[in-house]
Amino acid sequence: MDLTYRNIFKWGDKREENIAPRMVKLIKEKFDYKDDDFKDKHLPGLEQVRIDRRPGLKPLQLDFIRSIVGDEDILTDDYSRARFSCGKFYGELLDLRLGLVDSAPDAVVAPGSNEEIEKIISYCSSEHIPVIPVGGQSSVTGALKAPSGGIALDLTKHLNKVLRISTVNKTVTVQAGISGPSLEAELNSKGYTCGHFPQSFEYSTAGGWVAARGAGQASTGYGKIEDMVVALRVVTPAGVIETKDYPRTAQGWDLFRLFIGSEGTLGVITEITLSIHNYNPANRVSAAFIFRSFEQAVEVMRKAMQSEYGKPHLFRISDPEETDIAFQTGGFDNSLSDKVLRRIGFLPGERCLMFVTVEGETDYNRFVLKKIKKTAREGRGMFIGKSPVKKWLDQRYSSAYIRDPLMDLGIMTDTLETAVTWESLMKVWSSARAYVKKRPKTVFMVHISHVYENGANLYFTFLSPMEKGNEQDDFSAFHSGLVDTIVNNGGSLSHHHGVGRVLAPWMESHLGENSMKAFNAIKRHFDPQNIMNPGGTLGLIQEKNENIR
Amino acid sequence: MDLTYRNIFKWGDKREENIAPRMVKLIKEKFDYKDDDFKDKHLPGLEQVRIDRRPGLKPLQLDFIRSIVGDEDILTDDYSRARFSCGKFYGELLDLRLGLVDSAPDAVVAPGSNEEIEKIISYCSSEHIPVIPVGGQSSVTGALKAPSGGIALDLTKHLNKVLRISTVNKTVTVQAGISGPSLEAELNSKGYTCGHFPQSFEYSTAGGWVAARGAGQASTGYGKIEDMVVALRVVTPAGVIETKDYPRTAQGWDLFRLFIGSEGTLGVITEITLSIHNYNPANRVSAAFIFRSFEQAVEVMRKAMQSEYGKPHLFRISDPEETDIAFQTGGFDNSLSDKVLRRIGFLPGERCLMFVTVEGETDYNRFVLKKIKKTAREGRGMFIGKSPVKKWLDQRYSSAYIRDPLMDLGIMTDTLETAVTWESLMKVWSSARAYVKKRPKTVFMVHISHVYENGANLYFTFLSPMEKGNEQDDFSAFHSGLVDTIVNNGGSLSHHHGVGRVLAPWMESHLGENSMKAFNAIKRHFDPQNIMNPGGTLGLIQEKNENIR
Repeated sequence: MDLTYRNIFKWGDKREENIAPRMVKLIKEKFDYKDDDFKDKHLPGLEQVRIDRRPGLKPLQLDFIRSIVGDEDILTDDYSRARFSCGKFYGELLDLRLGLVDSAPDAVVAPGSNEEIEKIISYCSSEHIPVIPVGGQSSVTGALKAPSGGIALDLTKHLNKVLRISTVNKTVTVQAGISGPSLEAELNSKGYTCGHFPQSFEYSTAGGWVAARGAGQASTGYGKIEDMVVALRVVTPAGVIETKDYPRTAQGWDLFRLFIGSEGTLGVITEITLSIHNYNPANRVSAAFIFRSFEQAVEVMRKAMQSEYGKPHLFRISDPEETDIAFQTGGFDNSLSDKVLRRIGFLPGERCLMFVTVEGETDYNRFVLKKIKKTAREGRGMFIGKSPVKKWLDQRYSSAYIRDPLMDLGIMTDTLETAVTWESLMKVWSSARAYVKKRPKTVFMVHISHVYENGANLYFTFLSPMEKGNEQDDFSAFHSGLVDTIVNNGGSLSHHHGVGRVLAPWMESHLGENSMKAFNAIKRHFDPQNIMNPGGTLGLIQEKNENIR
Repeated sequence: MDLTYRNIFKWGDKREENIAPRMVKLIKEKFDYKDDDFKDKHLPGLEQVRIDRRPGLKPLQLDFIRSIVGDEDILTDDYSRARFSCGKFYGELLDLRLGLVDSAPDAVVAPGSNEEIEKIISYCSSEHIPVIPVGGQSSVTGALKAPSGGIALDLTKHLNKVLRISTVNKTVTVQAGISGPSLEAELNSKGYTCGHFPQSFEYSTAGGWVAARGAGQASTGYGKIEDMVVALRVVTPAGVIETKDYPRTAQGWDLFRLFIGSEGTLGVITEITLSIHNYNPANRVSAAFIFRSFEQAVEVMRKAMQSEYGKPHLFRISDPEETDIAFQTGGFDNSLSDKVLRRIGFLPGERCLMFVTVEGETDYNRFVLKKIKKTAREGRGMFIGKSPVKKWLDQRYSSAYIRDPLMDLGIMTDTLETAVTWESLMKVWSSARAYVKKRPKTVFMVHISHVYENGANLYFTFLSPMEKGNEQDDFSAFHSGLVDTIVNNGGSLSHHHGVGRVLAPWMESHLGENSMKAFNAIKRHFDPQNIMNPGGTLGLIQEKNENIR
């Protein structure tokens, strides 16, 4: 295998190699690209990986860890260390393209059992060796960096199985390193589904979902990961916490909730019990609607969520710019149907698409969809069939893989997302747009994709030519200004990607000093030596580095 | 006013005075009571309240607190102190009947604003004065005792208002001391309902619901209180925590969740933002069913909850003994209909009642009820109309008030409740029955009243003649054995009453040592001087009493 930086930042998915002709056309239009601009790859990262920083782990320490997991499950070569030093945050991908690996772990360790993890955590705690639990590495928040070295704990190699399905309790218990497709395949074969389908589904793990507080694309019906977790087993430096699978209790604090969104800072999540759902893909109903304005679409969405007639599973709105791009890349733009749409007032730059699926029991699906259709009609939306939803579902995961070919073209592209109340949604949306549009040649697509009675999320995607030679600082400044704009206008720091190190600097001003003190107290209890994913994740105070070798 | 113990332990509700003739008949049958046994009141508690323990607060301390809240909002008389020393736990009522008040606060203080609370908490923290936040005093876990004295903080006198209703976000923000009926009246007038109807509804507060992690009778549809809370404002000795009203986030820990179920041990909950629902009482549909066995009823309930066709709001099953008693006290026993029922196999001692309401949008209600009727039919249940549900709803709160007249008759009666997975439900139910039935002349009624996809709660009510002269020890031993039986067979310590001091001794063995250490770490952070409801609530270690005056 080619041990290049490129091999690390690529998803390894064939679908990521191609840019469809309509997308090429769009890029030319939006960014003033000529044919020549498509010839060479910008910062292709073809060099062999080399890490200058010497591993901080002493040979004796490595030997001890090796004695726990065995020779084959500890890797110390540069390529492996670099591979485990990052997730899929744009800034990380850029660093790799520039050949920069400044936060690699000293070793990658793949434990084979809970007992091995307990031994490792106990040893690392006594030796002050950082430990970074790693799942599918689809993090987009810089949560997997190892600024103080230590070991990356690869949970995917051995701890990737379904332990138990209870058809009576309707729960599944899994090891944290299981991937989305493995879990889903095993559940589907028994007539169940997990219902958790983040865009990173194909490359993420159950442990990562929980650690980052993820949300799947159909979370409006199935819930966010924190709505699915029933119990957890976690190995912390302060001992093992194993909670029970009661549906609800009133016996103090649900400790398992402290580990949801803990981003590896408290301990290693080893086992997860999740609520599961009936798997009836044939019963799924879907519908696409178009609206004359974003406001009208949002109002219909809010009414549907607040009408108490049942909920859809997938519920999305694309804002006007995202809708226009969908029309363009889908080949609908200026089609006969498009001309009809324009004539009756659904205009480019204003119109919005809404997608719905309902995925429960057959009659329920029909019932809820009928209700939503009525609400949409009353809100001046037009039903445009189900095929647009089907097309969207066909690329529900792969649209993420286009980022690398875009970066090859020198296009900066990243996503941000935020939770908003219904009251603040339009303000956050319009101020974010105003901010982004100050940058020339910048595409800004927004959708709403996780919806609640009390609010929703806004999901932002921007594309803009890189400032060549100044890629990192240009991105950082632009990204940082967008985060400022979101939080200053009432959005949360994150709805489902987590905080990591990227959003950490905003935590204290966003949550308040007293909240951050409480965060740090929780951290200190479970991880008194600050070995668990140290270095500022979640905005946690980096205790004096003397704790870390 | 008569300053007797009796005046304290009575709810003050007229409905509590009467024992219906059919109930009298039942008591005679079950407990071998004769007419004479109904003549006198056992331990009527008619003495004037007198507290022997001198207040521990120094005059200067009282003066300082008085300077914060004003003369009228600080009470130090024996009666007021006794009145605020307890909730409605059977053991507390028994103590009052025996004239025992051993854990009274030194003063009752009714703050008039958030600022006053902040001043009080800050002062009490520096002076090591215990503070017990008090709402409607319907606690059944001994959570309001003041074993080290200090002040009871009466939140009901001034901090009892709706602050804001957001019809866009569908949320309400209230002060913690607002009572159920006040909140509901204001919401109803605007077309909304809170959807939280615990049996204590008429005498409980929003702050109490949150502090004890309560559940309303229609929680299957509306959710438990932790499913309703969107944001909280809490004054802790470590500062004010005020969380934002995002529907969901992924930014570390939802700190507001630490205060749900905190039972006054971390701080004073001052403001609560709750999700609200559409108020359409006329649209409510309901149905009662009867089953030939508890197993069949439970199986239908589980199927209905796991079929993903929408959920009912109220969903209850009475076990055979509770069903028989409902027949007897309702006058159906041996009626013509009853004879028909028996002939077709619905036999006393085996048959079970199931009640359902659906309270959402009109068509949804009809749809879900139709589905449940079908599931019930397939599970050999028989629809018996809606009037039994209507009758039950008419007495949904008042059935609690019969406890005092029963105690007047020398009858010990208490309730316990537990969360169970579907897998462990039958085992917990049958072992609890086996335990209780070892005691002669003991009525044991069980129902399931809060239902989830993954499990449910079991709610136990027992009635048995007191062992006169040894009322307390007899009760304690019996109660304690029942808790042991529940937890040893897979039940949780509590589903919705909380832990308080009554269940505290089971916490460590139930949750594990590592969990209790984490509980104590959370406590130490927010309340380093251990002033918030000290003395073992939630099983928290009573730090050396030197901290407390």
